[in-house]
Amino acid sequence: MLPDKDSDFSAWYNALVRSAKLIEDGPVRGTTIFRPYGYSIWENIRNSLDIRFKKLGTQNVYFPLLLPVSYLSKEAEHVEGFAKECAVVTHSRLTTKQSGGKLIPDPDSKLEEQLIIRPTSESLIWATYKKWIASYRDLPIVLNQWANVVRWEMRTRPFLRTTEILWQEGHTAHTTSEEANNKAVEMQHLYADFIRKELAIPMILGVKSSYERFAGAKYTYTLEGVMQDGKALQLGTSHFLGQNFAKAFDVQFSDEENKRKYVWGTSWGVTTRLIGAVIMTHSDKKGLILPPKIAPQQVVLLPILKNKPDGKNKQVLENTHNIADSLRAVGIRVHIDQRTHHSLGWKINEYELQGVPLRIVLGERDLEKKQVELSFRDTGFKEFISINSIVGYLPTLLEKIQDRLYKKAELFQKSNTRKIDNYSEFIEQLKKPKPGFILAHWDGTTDTEKKIKKETGASIRCLPLGYKSNQGSCIYSGNKSIGRVIFAKAY
Amino acid sequence: MLPDKDSDFSAWYNALVRSAKLIEDGPVRGTTIFRPYGYSIWENIRNSLDIRFKKLGTQNVYFPLLLPVSYLSKEAEHVEGFAKECAVVTHSRLTTKQSGGKLIPDPDSKLEEQLIIRPTSESLIWATYKKWIASYRDLPIVLNQWANVVRWEMRTRPFLRTTEILWQEGHTAHTTSEEANNKAVEMQHLYADFIRKELAIPMILGVKSSYERFAGAKYTYTLEGVMQDGKALQLGTSHFLGQNFAKAFDVQFSDEENKRKYVWGTSWGVTTRLIGAVIMTHSDKKGLILPPKIAPQQVVLLPILKNKPDGKNKQVLENTHNIADSLRAVGIRVHIDQRTHHSLGWKINEYELQGVPLRIVLGERDLEKKQVELSFRDTGFKEFISINSIVGYLPTLLEKIQDRLYKKAELFQKSNTRKIDNYSEFIEQLKKPKPGFILAHWDGTTDTEKKIKKETGASIRCLPLGYKSNQGSCIYSGNKSIGRVIFAKAY
Repeated sequence: MLPDKDSDFSAWYNALVRSAKLIEDGPVRGTTIFRPYGYSIWENIRNSLDIRFKKLGTQNVYFPLLLPVSYLSKEAEHVEGFAKECAVVTHSRLTTKQSGGKLIPDPDSKLEEQLIIRPTSESLIWATYKKWIASYRDLPIVLNQWANVVRWEMRTRPFLRTTEILWQEGHTAHTTSEEANNKAVEMQHLYADFIRKELAIPMILGVKSSYERFAGAKYTYTLEGVMQDGKALQLGTSHFLGQNFAKAFDVQFSDEENKRKYVWGTSWGVTTRLIGAVIMTHSDKKGLILPPKIAPQQVVLLPILKNKPDGKNKQVLENTHNIADSLRAVGIRVHIDQRTHHSLGWKINEYELQGVPLRIVLGERDLEKKQVELSFRDTGFKEFISINSIVGYLPTLLEKIQDRLYKKAELFQKSNTRKIDNYSEFIEQLKKPKPGFILAHWDGTTDTEKKIKKETGASIRCLPLGYKSNQGSCIYSGNKSIGRVIFAKAY
Repeated sequence: MLPDKDSDFSAWYNALVRSAKLIEDGPVRGTTIFRPYGYSIWENIRNSLDIRFKKLGTQNVYFPLLLPVSYLSKEAEHVEGFAKECAVVTHSRLTTKQSGGKLIPDPDSKLEEQLIIRPTSESLIWATYKKWIASYRDLPIVLNQWANVVRWEMRTRPFLRTTEILWQEGHTAHTTSEEANNKAVEMQHLYADFIRKELAIPMILGVKSSYERFAGAKYTYTLEGVMQDGKALQLGTSHFLGQNFAKAFDVQFSDEENKRKYVWGTSWGVTTRLIGAVIMTHSDKKGLILPPKIAPQQVVLLPILKNKPDGKNKQVLENTHNIADSLRAVGIRVHIDQRTHHSLGWKINEYELQGVPLRIVLGERDLEKKQVELSFRDTGFKEFISINSIVGYLPTLLEKIQDRLYKKAELFQKSNTRKIDNYSEFIEQLKKPKPGFILAHWDGTTDTEKKIKKETGASIRCLPLGYKSNQGSCIYSGNKSIGRVIFAKAY
């Protein structure tokens, strides 16, 4: 049913996210309707991250959706980065007058100052920090918001690049450069830990080149994963903003000696792109494979029922519900599908498509033997287990599956990360179906970076942690390189 | 510090929400910045409601922020209700070209079809239900989303009426009128139970008159509270939509006999207005009084510390943190304020302003006596209690406070609800500083309703549950009335 994953990964992905009932398209280009199954994954990601943020003392806030255009223009690089792709609100009313019954923006409601829907909230937040920060005693400020932002992207792809984006954006303010930079790095590591443990996705941590970094940042710390098609996906970023926004919005504090100084800042965010990363890391030809920790349903129970119910249906259902109750009591998310207008085969396909980690089928004959059939979505392995052992066995199994998915993805990343020292080999590798990560020497100039991107389509994903340990010659210019960086084709 | 609550309730409210650090104004008229303290109340409301929704099988989803203008126009009453006050997006890019460096909407980016930011999502959701619903087996659908909506209100007030609104909107689809209507009533009662138990606010349940109901609904079920200034506040609404949206968007299903029928629908929502309701129901001249169940901090601990620390500071702090840990272990939300650059008096005022239910002050001399001073925000009562009894005592105390707040508000509602049978008395009552709820007979016509509203400023808040039991003559026209309805001046 799905397009072939190996020959057209992109078509496979686009079909999968829709047929697995994660999302469908909204009426406006590039917008997404999150269906219950898709939204539930986002809720699991969100709740888990939110707990981690709060453990570090982060407080949640909510800043408005709409900003005056003038706010965007205060930080020069920032406006350059965002003015080109934003939704502009110009009127506050619709009318059918003088338009032959058609609803049009009412000319009388034209706004004095045009507004934009936030593409990100730095400008509004820093304009507000100016009001909140007077003294070193007001610092640090560590805030986060879960919000929607709008960017008018030309090419969109579900979860990865959409017109409206669901995300979280953290914004912090500090007295010293060191404290701010440490916070940016701390958040990069928080994301890394979350993505490894909950999403079972391995990654490379590093810092962006100046060409690739966030519009307005001094450093952009990034987490880069490699997907099953050998393309890189940026999983999240954390920015050390230096004093850029503090200067643009004149945010100063008095230090302990009553000297006025500009504040140091960070911002950091992840989006529903993480759902895309999960899909592209773990899934297979049959459909989704979801890591148990964020799967909306960890176990699906499929009782075999007869279309014409007899006393035995009742018994099968009772057993099904008893098993479900006992699993829920130990915190496992269970779904029962007792519909009789779909065949067992149809249901099995459906839950394989939707990536439920474990499937339990139980019928009359199984019950006589006090057993059920347990199937693993990731390996396809099946076994019969006794009903009495289910509750003791499944929590450990789910952990094992989580672990196995990570190890498999880690192996994939490892075997798709190559050191290359020769530019023609580099070009060849990037033409292959699964180019992967390439560790190559680079002379550190934006000029070389742009030329490589233009010639090969590969960008510098990051300067990985500890990259300076290793000197060499730039793969392109032959000039001195202080370390290997990660090149890849990227989403 | 706050304006006088009795002589200018509105000024008191506006000053309070800002000085208690709940919110401040966004740069765009009528938008709100939720500060950590204010947002935390919303998080508590949201989490608690979300659990209740999910217990009824509701699934969360997320529909896009932007709708094409044509979507709004499909349901006739709906467009009438919402076209007059919405944010219209007309361009997708800003430019400084040909404008002397000023950022303006790029004329080349003008959208072919204008978009609006959703004022509510019925139209988009029903357009989607058309794709999801084919058979009775696809029903019921019970979905909810937590989202932001934008309405270009003329007069705004924090939490109550804002340009951008944070809310939840539930949207359900059913095979029968009865099932849909029952769902609308069920949600009205879910809200009532939540508002009584968590927010400690009493209310009157009823149904809106046809003039006051939601644009597109058959019935609007409502919950109406009376605030301390004697004005009514609509706390939430639940709409039985009949087949209005199903017909507007052609959403039909095949029943068990394979006959095609239109689907029946509901929608229901509450907003951050509930925070406004909490403030206007419970607070006093000193500031907020928050019900313990939704208070961001249920207990504040104020250790008395010396500016020049000695060994005794350490001991006081140790005790403070031990008490906090033991309270947190039983699920109580505790805040410690150990700042030394503010006096104890300043802090007491601050936490009274912020409405923290319980305050514990402890100093060196208290510790010698193994006691602390406990103060109640709602009554102002103080007592000394032994340190050992705190953990056993406080959970019960918080419940008692919650209960006391409800009873006090209930008494207020009762003493501000009057039966009036004479129009001149009715007019006089509405001129009083605290007009309250008026139970009066009405002839059931929109004409009378409009005239009363024009002459007195009072609207029909609802036809209360069971109102038909009681016949009489309309207070305005003298015509036959089948029951008393609730009139009030309202927010």
